[in-house]
Amino acid sequence: MAGSTFGKIFRVTTWGESHGAATGAVVDGCPAGVTLCAADVQPYMDRRRPGFSEFTSGRAEPDAVEILSGVCDGRTTGAPISMIIKNTGQNSGEYDKLKGVYRPGHADYAATQKYGIYDHRGGGRFSGRETAGRVMGGAVASKFLAELGVKIRAYTVMVAGVHIDKANFDLNETKNNPLYMPDKKAYEKAAARLRELMSEGDSAGGIIECVVSGLKPGVGEPVFDKLDALLSSAVFSIGGVKGVEIGSGFAAAAATGITHNDGYYTDNKKVVKYSNNAGGVTGGLSDGADIIIRAAVKPTPSVFLPQRTVNDSGGETTFVTGGRHDPVIAARAAVVAECMAAIVVADLVLQGLSSNIENVKKIYL
Amino acid sequence: MAGSTFGKIFRVTTWGESHGAATGAVVDGCPAGVTLCAADVQPYMDRRRPGFSEFTSGRAEPDAVEILSGVCDGRTTGAPISMIIKNTGQNSGEYDKLKGVYRPGHADYAATQKYGIYDHRGGGRFSGRETAGRVMGGAVASKFLAELGVKIRAYTVMVAGVHIDKANFDLNETKNNPLYMPDKKAYEKAAARLRELMSEGDSAGGIIECVVSGLKPGVGEPVFDKLDALLSSAVFSIGGVKGVEIGSGFAAAAATGITHNDGYYTDNKKVVKYSNNAGGVTGGLSDGADIIIRAAVKPTPSVFLPQRTVNDSGGETTFVTGGRHDPVIAARAAVVAECMAAIVVADLVLQGLSSNIENVKKIYL
Amino acid sequence: MAGSTFGKIFRVTTWGESHGAATGAVVDGCPAGVTLCAADVQPYMDRRRPGFSEFTSGRAEPDAVEILSGVCDGRTTGAPISMIIKNTGQNSGEYDKLKGVYRPGHADYAATQKYGIYDHRGGGRFSGRETAGRVMGGAVASKFLAELGVKIRAYTVMVAGVHIDKANFDLNETKNNPLYMPDKKAYEKAAARLRELMSEGDSAGGIIECVVSGLKPGVGEPVFDKLDALLSSAVFSIGGVKGVEIGSGFAAAAATGITHNDGYYTDNKKVVKYSNNAGGVTGGLSDGADIIIRAAVKPTPSVFLPQRTVNDSGGETTFVTGGRHDPVIAARAAVVAECMAAIVVADLVLQGLSSNIENVKKIYL
Amino acid sequence: MAGSTFGKIFRVTTWGESHGAATGAVVDGCPAGVTLCAADVQPYMDRRRPGFSEFTSGRAEPDAVEILSGVCDGRTTGAPISMIIKNTGQNSGEYDKLKGVYRPGHADYAATQKYGIYDHRGGGRFSGRETAGRVMGGAVASKFLAELGVKIRAYTVMVAGVHIDKANFDLNETKNNPLYMPDKKAYEKAAARLRELMSEGDSAGGIIECVVSGLKPGVGEPVFDKLDALLSSAVFSIGGVKGVEIGSGFAAAAATGITHNDGYYTDNKKVVKYSNNAGGVTGGLSDGADIIIRAAVKPTPSVFLPQRTVNDSGGETTFVTGGRHDPVIAARAAVVAECMAAIVVADLVLQGLSSNIENVKKIYL
Repeated sequence: MAGSTFGKIFRVTTWGESHGAATGAVVDGCPAGVTLCAADVQPYMDRRRPGFSEFTSGRAEPDAVEILSGVCDGRTTGAPISMIIKNTGQNSGEYDKLKGVYRPGHADYAATQKYGIYDHRGGGRFSGRETAGRVMGGAVASKFLAELGVKIRAYTVMVAGVHIDKANFDLNETKNNPLYMPDKKAYEKAAARLRELMSEGDSAGGIIECVVSGLKPGVGEPVFDKLDALLSSAVFSIGGVKGVEIGSGFAAAAATGITHNDGYYTDNKKVVKYSNNAGGVTGGLSDGADIIIRAAVKPTPSVFLPQRTVNDSGGETTFVTGGRHDPVIAARAAVVAECMAAIVVADLVLQGLSSNIENVKKIYL
Repeated sequence: MAGSTFGKIFRVTTWGESHGAATGAVVDGCPAGVTLCAADVQPYMDRRRPGFSEFTSGRAEPDAVEILSGVCDGRTTGAPISMIIKNTGQNSGEYDKLKGVYRPGHADYAATQKYGIYDHRGGGRFSGRETAGRVMGGAVASKFLAELGVKIRAYTVMVAGVHIDKANFDLNETKNNPLYMPDKKAYEKAAARLRELMSEGDSAGGIIECVVSGLKPGVGEPVFDKLDALLSSAVFSIGGVKGVEIGSGFAAAAATGITHNDGYYTDNKKVVKYSNNAGGVTGGLSDGADIIIRAAVKPTPSVFLPQRTVNDSGGETTFVTGGRHDPVIAARAAVVAECMAAIVVADLVLQGLSSNIENVKKIYL
Repeated sequence: MAGSTFGKIFRVTTWGESHGAATGAVVDGCPAGVTLCAADVQPYMDRRRPGFSEFTSGRAEPDAVEILSGVCDGRTTGAPISMIIKNTGQNSGEYDKLKGVYRPGHADYAATQKYGIYDHRGGGRFSGRETAGRVMGGAVASKFLAELGVKIRAYTVMVAGVHIDKANFDLNETKNNPLYMPDKKAYEKAAARLRELMSEGDSAGGIIECVVSGLKPGVGEPVFDKLDALLSSAVFSIGGVKGVEIGSGFAAAAATGITHNDGYYTDNKKVVKYSNNAGGVTGGLSDGADIIIRAAVKPTPSVFLPQRTVNDSGGETTFVTGGRHDPVIAARAAVVAECMAAIVVADLVLQGLSSNIENVKKIYL
Repeated sequence: MAGSTFGKIFRVTTWGESHGAATGAVVDGCPAGVTLCAADVQPYMDRRRPGFSEFTSGRAEPDAVEILSGVCDGRTTGAPISMIIKNTGQNSGEYDKLKGVYRPGHADYAATQKYGIYDHRGGGRFSGRETAGRVMGGAVASKFLAELGVKIRAYTVMVAGVHIDKANFDLNETKNNPLYMPDKKAYEKAAARLRELMSEGDSAGGIIECVVSGLKPGVGEPVFDKLDALLSSAVFSIGGVKGVEIGSGFAAAAATGITHNDGYYTDNKKVVKYSNNAGGVTGGLSDGADIIIRAAVKPTPSVFLPQRTVNDSGGETTFVTGGRHDPVIAARAAVVAECMAAIVVADLVLQGLSSNIENVKKIYL
């Protein structure tokens, strides 16, 4: 297993389990000279932090991030940036009764086959707590990208079957509700539906949208490291994601060529597009328009209802989940998707510096 | 740009442009001892070959693959396997009138921004001809996986708005029609609709489905190198793909936890699932069930209708595409998706060999 | 900059500067099921720890290692293993007077050109303290390799111009002297010479030897990832190393073919060699004999004598080093070389698992 | 096995065996816009080509290189550059009598253990013919570096025990003698000694020196990807190399700090050094001085004298090498070392573009 590092130049390595001593990330390859302190990272941590709304797990964690290296006098030095949060709210006892039971929708069965042993305490490395390190890395990427005029924002566009109404879209509203929905009315309906499901012991899915704006054209590498391919991988690697689309997404499959193509025109000498079905990516490269990613997130697999399954002795059994679990993953996963997008974009911006000899000469000579 | 290599242990590097002398791939990391010859690869090449149906580009290419290295006495030696096809049917003249015109839906504009120069002849490296190398790599991966009992098969489930009827599903039928649809009736409707679009100079999109069967549980690496994440990236990197989903996909977002979870039971001491909403992947690892991937492919951007756009001098212009272009990408892309899936699975099977010390001892000691 | 990760499957990422809050490493890709606790790592840390002999820097650090993740119930789980030590003995004030002065033999000038800014406090990331993370990673690699019967040991064979006498070679003696010399008499002479140099404010170089024993034949990958090439890179990356040789090393250049070749014979059905000029590596692969690496380490560049140099305003100046510095790097670097060798061997053992289809089937089927 | 790719951004993948159909390389990540044609690569191929002097193997190969992709109108496009030479002079019959015999000094025994099967025809992938692909990659790297004012040149400084006299050093002389020695007198002595050894059926070793000039300070990445570490790995990966040193090399181990440090001064506002014991690398970064690498190459293991060994049935045997073999590897390996150095430097120059935010802004904004 060596899957804990993401990126080629801007590289993020995460570590930590649900019930270990701490969780963290190491960012290697961030350019020197970026203004950075823990207070830049903390707001991102707070957006994914559990325990602070009726719709998040009861496990309350301060998740106060510390920067242990790579920053001197408030600026990055080019050295790896190590960040850490302590785990304080875990309660392993809750999980002891589930030891050896393969929970449906979780990695328990597959991981036991793979490793021979399985850290049953909260899912170990397969826990959503793993995403804390991604958020640390993404916060640093976002700070770097902000210096280049690139902004990224993610939110939910559907929760528990309730879609936002684009006419009501208000990005500020995402700060006011714990489901990160940019539509107050939709939030209220979704919250009501969620409460219903919670009272039944059930859970809900949702759809996240993430928008990258201000990115110049030409970011991405052809063939295997296309901008859309890497965004897809980055977002799909978040636990619970079952689908990813860019721009028109699955609707593109039913369109015809002449209606789907985004024609170009010039606006004040700038090349722009009449439409954005491409979602900001053509041929795997950014085309100057907003990049639009959507991800489908499955309902939380930990539900408080009896489920039939098998244990590690091969015996069939019925169990009811204990522990603390969000009734919906999509809400807190939005900031994780945003952070993964930031890491991909930061890495591809840096990879692109060497795309042509004129650029190389600009820096080297 | 260094995006032409895919995989960590089973690594495929592709090269070649639409109008260059040849196109090829180098597979490094294939285990020694796998039976292999050119005749194993050729059927895959033939499935993506242009010029042999009313629905593919008029560019007729034999695409006869040669193996130049890595095989001795009919078996792989562990050395890199270099494969090549000659480009014979290209006609660069067709493209000269488009030099400097940014074709909508293509990489022309973004690539010019990135590289300073742009190989306008058929899109250069951004051409669909780039996928020939992927198919070579995937054919080798499939041969290796077959020795482990793993089979992969891709086909279209929707073309030009016409969906297959699952009741009519017949995998053999995919060999009988040039749209690779596993439903004869659906094919006939889709073909009729395609002919209509072609007569209008327009094009169509489609949806590909790919199924990996026979894979044991535990394949995939946690966090960033999850099986589903890498499959998503691999398939999304094929030109024209706008969305990817695994198992229930976007439908998962609207489900509730208790209905979406796939409970386990035992069948003849084997652990199996009541359902397969997960699409064969839980926690990023294979769970023993079939792995089911779907990809949305946009309509061919090269349509034979006037389009408004901009040229590289910043002037607005209207043009009509010349050259030869498939009216639908999804059909020929099916084998490419299948090959990318094979490369991902082969690589993750090899990565997984080191997952626990007992396995390491089995081989090393 | 993204140079803080080493290895492909067994991957070590280090972080931390001389005068930051802490220093650490993350090991990703260690197989699950290896017995491991902090007490396994600490003895390695103690061997490189400063401040405990007349020949090491006065900076006294406990360097007590903590394992923060990846271990459950005393065994590795397959998840990344994060390890950390606190920095406690740093004294940044000592360095303030050197701010902006390019110290000869150090990275100061080159790093300032590279990053625009330079963390002058103890050399920042360019400090020898960076090697603490390598030792953590190497300790884990050694624990894993011990389960396969592989042992690695490094020591000095020359310090301050005094060579060991092979006739006196006693590996146990390395534990008794702070120069890690396996020859008591040579140690005494070297120590005397070192004291002389210290009294003059000068410093000394040395040669490290590292022996890997018990490794089976066939470990290493052809062409670029040869066992000797990676060992060379790993050891050369330790600050101060100016040369690396394997087996006969530079002496090979003056030999003739018939005298240099190591003929094979059989001993109790095992294939063994009459000699070991190859140093255990042929064609980049281990050949079953001991692997023997030697590294030349330059004298500590921080000497307490006036030196002429330039500062970052371009002015010529003369300065005398303050701070605390070992009079010889080679001694404490021995354990670092041993640890780097362990990481290389662990990684190549794991890479080699997929070398042939029969091995793959042994694990996968 | 996945060791056939070198580099992170400027990446070279080589393929081909001694007795296969062809040999080649794919360069991915070369910036677009570099002037390049086959005539730029051919002179490098000619320097390593066999069969054209009394001191090289009788196997005469034209080794005419073709560029199959990545170049359009005489300039690189940013797409992968595929290059190929045909194998024409192989004579596999020569090797049949050695099938199953473990030749001392070769990979035969270790490779058989690793792969289960072994391509005995000329050593397969372990043949020196493998280096042809390195030379193709290095020729492209050199062309790119020339545009930045960086020049690299390698030659022999010792052959068959005869060292050059620095007082006679004349780089032009390397073109006049087949041993690539920059000293006519030394060449004549070495040639005489070589003829003697050849008449005895024996072979000789040698030492290569490689100088990189014109490289600006700050190239290299800290910790594991130091310039000297990667140069060492690159050169050590050439078959037959047993030692590598930079600058003062092994002599550094015997020096004292004050004599070994290279003080800085200013010359016309440029920072320069009084001496170059560092060999142009401090802290793993280039320091603006010439980079000086030396490599010890063992004598050709294929000698025409009886040798005792073991075969793959475990039987002891005596054999005499047939086939065609250079009496010294070091001479033809010089251009390979030069090419490997070029690849390392090209890759690290490109990696360094992202070292600080000011540089990133210069290109991106």
